[in-house]
Amino acid sequence: MNLHVVILAAGQGTRMRSKLPKVLHPVAGKPMLGHVIDCARSLSPTRIHVVIGHGAELVRERLAAEDIHWVLQTEQLGTGHAVAQALPGTEGADQVLVLYGDVPLLRVDTLQQLSSQAGAQALGMLTVTMADPTGYGRIVRDAAGQVQAIVEQKDASAEQLAICEGNTGIMALPGKHAARWLGSLSNQNAQGEYYLTDVVAMAVSEQIPVEVAHAVDEYEVLGANNRVQLAVLEAEYRRRQAERLMTEGVSLADPARIDVRGDVRVGRDISIDINVVLEGHVVIEDDVIIEPNCVLRDCHIGAGSHIKAFSHIDGAELASGCDVGPYARLRPGTRLQAGAKIGNFVETKKADIGAGAKVNHLSYIGDAVVGPDVNIGAGTITCNYDGVNKHLTTIEEGAFIGTNTALVAPVTIGARATTAAGSTITTNVPADTLAVSRARQRNIDGWKHPTKS
Amino acid sequence: MNLHVVILAAGQGTRMRSKLPKVLHPVAGKPMLGHVIDCARSLSPTRIHVVIGHGAELVRERLAAEDIHWVLQTEQLGTGHAVAQALPGTEGADQVLVLYGDVPLLRVDTLQQLSSQAGAQALGMLTVTMADPTGYGRIVRDAAGQVQAIVEQKDASAEQLAICEGNTGIMALPGKHAARWLGSLSNQNAQGEYYLTDVVAMAVSEQIPVEVAHAVDEYEVLGANNRVQLAVLEAEYRRRQAERLMTEGVSLADPARIDVRGDVRVGRDISIDINVVLEGHVVIEDDVIIEPNCVLRDCHIGAGSHIKAFSHIDGAELASGCDVGPYARLRPGTRLQAGAKIGNFVETKKADIGAGAKVNHLSYIGDAVVGPDVNIGAGTITCNYDGVNKHLTTIEEGAFIGTNTALVAPVTIGARATTAAGSTITTNVPADTLAVSRARQRNIDGWKHPTKS
Amino acid sequence: MNLHVVILAAGQGTRMRSKLPKVLHPVAGKPMLGHVIDCARSLSPTRIHVVIGHGAELVRERLAAEDIHWVLQTEQLGTGHAVAQALPGTEGADQVLVLYGDVPLLRVDTLQQLSSQAGAQALGMLTVTMADPTGYGRIVRDAAGQVQAIVEQKDASAEQLAICEGNTGIMALPGKHAARWLGSLSNQNAQGEYYLTDVVAMAVSEQIPVEVAHAVDEYEVLGANNRVQLAVLEAEYRRRQAERLMTEGVSLADPARIDVRGDVRVGRDISIDINVVLEGHVVIEDDVIIEPNCVLRDCHIGAGSHIKAFSHIDGAELASGCDVGPYARLRPGTRLQAGAKIGNFVETKKADIGAGAKVNHLSYIGDAVVGPDVNIGAGTITCNYDGVNKHLTTIEEGAFIGTNTALVAPVTIGARATTAAGSTITTNVPADTLAVSRARQRNIDGWKHPTKS
Repeated sequence: MNLHVVILAAGQGTRMRSKLPKVLHPVAGKPMLGHVIDCARSLSPTRIHVVIGHGAELVRERLAAEDIHWVLQTEQLGTGHAVAQALPGTEGADQVLVLYGDVPLLRVDTLQQLSSQAGAQALGMLTVTMADPTGYGRIVRDAAGQVQAIVEQKDASAEQLAICEGNTGIMALPGKHAARWLGSLSNQNAQGEYYLTDVVAMAVSEQIPVEVAHAVDEYEVLGANNRVQLAVLEAEYRRRQAERLMTEGVSLADPARIDVRGDVRVGRDISIDINVVLEGHVVIEDDVIIEPNCVLRDCHIGAGSHIKAFSHIDGAELASGCDVGPYARLRPGTRLQAGAKIGNFVETKKADIGAGAKVNHLSYIGDAVVGPDVNIGAGTITCNYDGVNKHLTTIEEGAFIGTNTALVAPVTIGARATTAAGSTITTNVPADTLAVSRARQRNIDGWKHPTKS
Repeated sequence: MNLHVVILAAGQGTRMRSKLPKVLHPVAGKPMLGHVIDCARSLSPTRIHVVIGHGAELVRERLAAEDIHWVLQTEQLGTGHAVAQALPGTEGADQVLVLYGDVPLLRVDTLQQLSSQAGAQALGMLTVTMADPTGYGRIVRDAAGQVQAIVEQKDASAEQLAICEGNTGIMALPGKHAARWLGSLSNQNAQGEYYLTDVVAMAVSEQIPVEVAHAVDEYEVLGANNRVQLAVLEAEYRRRQAERLMTEGVSLADPARIDVRGDVRVGRDISIDINVVLEGHVVIEDDVIIEPNCVLRDCHIGAGSHIKAFSHIDGAELASGCDVGPYARLRPGTRLQAGAKIGNFVETKKADIGAGAKVNHLSYIGDAVVGPDVNIGAGTITCNYDGVNKHLTTIEEGAFIGTNTALVAPVTIGARATTAAGSTITTNVPADTLAVSRARQRNIDGWKHPTKS
Repeated sequence: MNLHVVILAAGQGTRMRSKLPKVLHPVAGKPMLGHVIDCARSLSPTRIHVVIGHGAELVRERLAAEDIHWVLQTEQLGTGHAVAQALPGTEGADQVLVLYGDVPLLRVDTLQQLSSQAGAQALGMLTVTMADPTGYGRIVRDAAGQVQAIVEQKDASAEQLAICEGNTGIMALPGKHAARWLGSLSNQNAQGEYYLTDVVAMAVSEQIPVEVAHAVDEYEVLGANNRVQLAVLEAEYRRRQAERLMTEGVSLADPARIDVRGDVRVGRDISIDINVVLEGHVVIEDDVIIEPNCVLRDCHIGAGSHIKAFSHIDGAELASGCDVGPYARLRPGTRLQAGAKIGNFVETKKADIGAGAKVNHLSYIGDAVVGPDVNIGAGTITCNYDGVNKHLTTIEEGAFIGTNTALVAPVTIGARATTAAGSTITTNVPADTLAVSRARQRNIDGWKHPTKS
């Protein structure tokens, strides 16, 4: 089927009180429009047309992608008018699916069902059962269950007001009728707008079948017009992701206190404690334990690794059996080999830490290659930056870096070498060598503490 | 209108299981009584009278203010008796508003409405619609909607028990009748107490108008008698504040996981992630991003600043475009100029950090003035304390402090000067100078690691 | 009464998607079966029999205890069959209580009541009122309120389906009938299993009294078959514990954001802010303040101590009036004497910190004894590890350790001694002595910054 998708994304969203156009406001870190585009893409349409208006340039820039056809709607004259702007680009479509850029939680399955039920011959409508349908157009059906009309709140009889099936506005137009129907819309109504919804009456009167798909819940057709509603969507997204993780074999201490915002893939028998945030592309293998209050972004956590409380991991790859934190910060370019250990108040960046190596306390390891079984003492700092350029520190297998050591890069510490505590190492240390750089200790007796000035 | 406010605050609150008198228990960090006093003040009354009893001295001490008239109630003989204790101080009042020190969420708008409806001639009552009014006095009205009586639970007919409008006890007494009414109260009841509520019957029998204002919700008239109820109030306070922030243009990752406890003023397009606590006087300008798990207290965050996860900011002022954290601790007296950057595991105190200056890792900068574009290496420590006195460190524009540098204050590092890694700087360094203080590195070969003892 | 308890714990729990047998999945850090065993123990039974099957070895290993009689059920043929496996060990029992290893929130009071109501003569059943009993066996009673039968969902009439009292499966069997009844069970049913529930019909037909105890809420009889249900149990456990703390005199900023997972004992007038996790054996004395985002495990917090945000305390003992954090990590073996202070980015391990001593910033103090009133400067590190052995650092009363000092253990700093900033101390420092180990500072003028390479 030649499927075209039209996404309406021209609104300003005044009630957001924001410089940002409404559809760019994020849910789980991704613009609402991005969620809608991703959902549309999953149906492999011929083309996705996005109708933009307010903040058009910014929207294009943020969501730039080759498969999107941007359509500018210079005036906002209603949903029917918006879809009409995109229609010239849908030439030859069997079906034109209409979505909304501020309705980000639509499920792929639901959309798939709407599209396939309607096909090329019928008008497809997505409806939803609402606890309180006040304000929504009600779906009026005949005795056979066939849709007869959408009746707006103000026009509804008492009987019709009791209908809990509401119109979502999400529709699949048969390509062969779309242009004609949209061309026939009228703006003779209170708002003076062209309403897409009016095509339902046209289909009914022309005896073209109307196929109805049903949203699973209200959240998947909920739009956000202000930040309170945005927070409701975020909460539902959080809930869905937490449930997915638990179903896949992850134990969550509290599903209400985990934030899964990106593309997170999990193994089994993972345990995630409260208040953990997962963003971007995250892979967590089997048997990983994540303690409270960790932030993980774009990282790979190898099987059996243990991420302790207050860890912050961004752009890092951990092999199996690593031990990280508490209060460890792994920055981009960090790679931990199997069984490596990064302890508290330690920062790593562009650092390859060898198997079984330990950086247990209060250190900064940046632009470094650390061999297996190296032990780096507390207070060790790689002086990788001279104010202008960055330089590499190499520490070879089994070396022992004493506490409070400054390693002035570029520098190499050879295998099994040792640096004495408190040393500043400026030249290479050969293998099996002890490097010392410190002054002799003098004890001066009779010392008096300073007095209050 | 000559308005006097009487706040009843004499109760002990046994069920709190606490040394603290009940009204001092905090909601959002402020004693409940403090919230009530602030609400009362917003009506600009002639005087606020607070009736105290249990823990009277502690209450006076904690909430000392010139505009409060403290009234000691030596025996607790009921609400009517309590108000009567304060009455001698309300001479000449047009209206006497009665509030409760353990009902902290009353809205200013609601109180204003109660007061203005009642004026000087009528008795004003605040009522509330309750989901479950069991135990509360029901408001009985006649066919015209006029209040006829308050009927207590035990005296109510089945029909009256079905009334969901309950008495809150919050009242506006007409000044001219107050003394007479209170003097007429009787304690001939099961508890042997003088009930303020009985004045309603007096007003009705004297055909003095009874004006009713209505609370927006049950929370604003809810009192706390134990810590479970206190937590309910705290949650409602949290909800209100979160909603306010969102309405003003702040995106919250989760309105259930932000704690706004003080006087927090926000710009637009601010984004606040989960589990952030804001206390005291906080100003957050436009376009600020606050990542998860930050604590901000008494601070000013300039426009476009980025506060990363796990930051702790207290008593600091940040100009625009600053970059702080993760794991940064800014203590009182910290001032960051535009574009300054404080990184992980860094503590600052009484420190003025110049525009564009960077303190990226593992440092303590206290009692210091740091010029623009200074770069402070990892592990730098200002030795500001000699055990008795604090001394100042000055680092001038464009200086470069090498890693693991100890700066023994008082000391000045001149503009564009450099300190070598691992140095302890005890005397001033002139501009454009390199200061080195370290021993020559010796490499001792044939080094053997220690063996297990 | 000779009481035996049989706990059924043989299930696999396929829907957990886990290697772990179902009953080992934890609630609040303890295996579900562990909660059930603890509840059973509170009745001081003669013996506890646990019927195991899937993962039997692992279950035995994890919950090893002398008072448990492990019974292996090689085939899972239903609850009746499972209990029958344990019966040979219950010789002489007056009562056999049947519990479930995946129903962890049963209250001791409820179990006690079931057991005592039933005694040695009656069959005891635990039932529960359910909001939605769909799928559960309904309790059918006669006009006098006597239990007549348990009717399964599929066999129930419309009238019976409306019954909200459901069977929990938890039972007290009279010892003298247990063997006979279990021996009479049939597996002629759809599942081909032997159902324990069928003994109710036997008791009724034999006119043996059936005594019913009632669970307080659905949670205490709720089992977990998947991780979503496990999270529901965890939430209920969290709620119960939070309520207990509040009742005992602890103020919680948010009862939904505290996790009490172990044996936590509290004094009064304690204040615990959001997102605090308490695990293991924790004692918190009066007037302690705990700020947001702290993790406390197996520790004792003395009266009036103040634990600041982001602190991580594990295996530590704090005397009264200590001041810890923010970002302090106290590891096992840490003892703080009265009024000691541990500040930000400080790690302690096997360290005894004297009264009034201060370790305020960026330090690692391990394997150390620190006397009273010692001041340890920022960046101080005890070099306790030579790569093989750990050594002790002793710092005596009133000593002052300068910033960036490395203390190479074993070493002793005498009373009132001082170490100069930036020193590496390798030999003992006598009392009242200043130890210095640093090179003279040289200022090299005309220094040019490196240029971009």
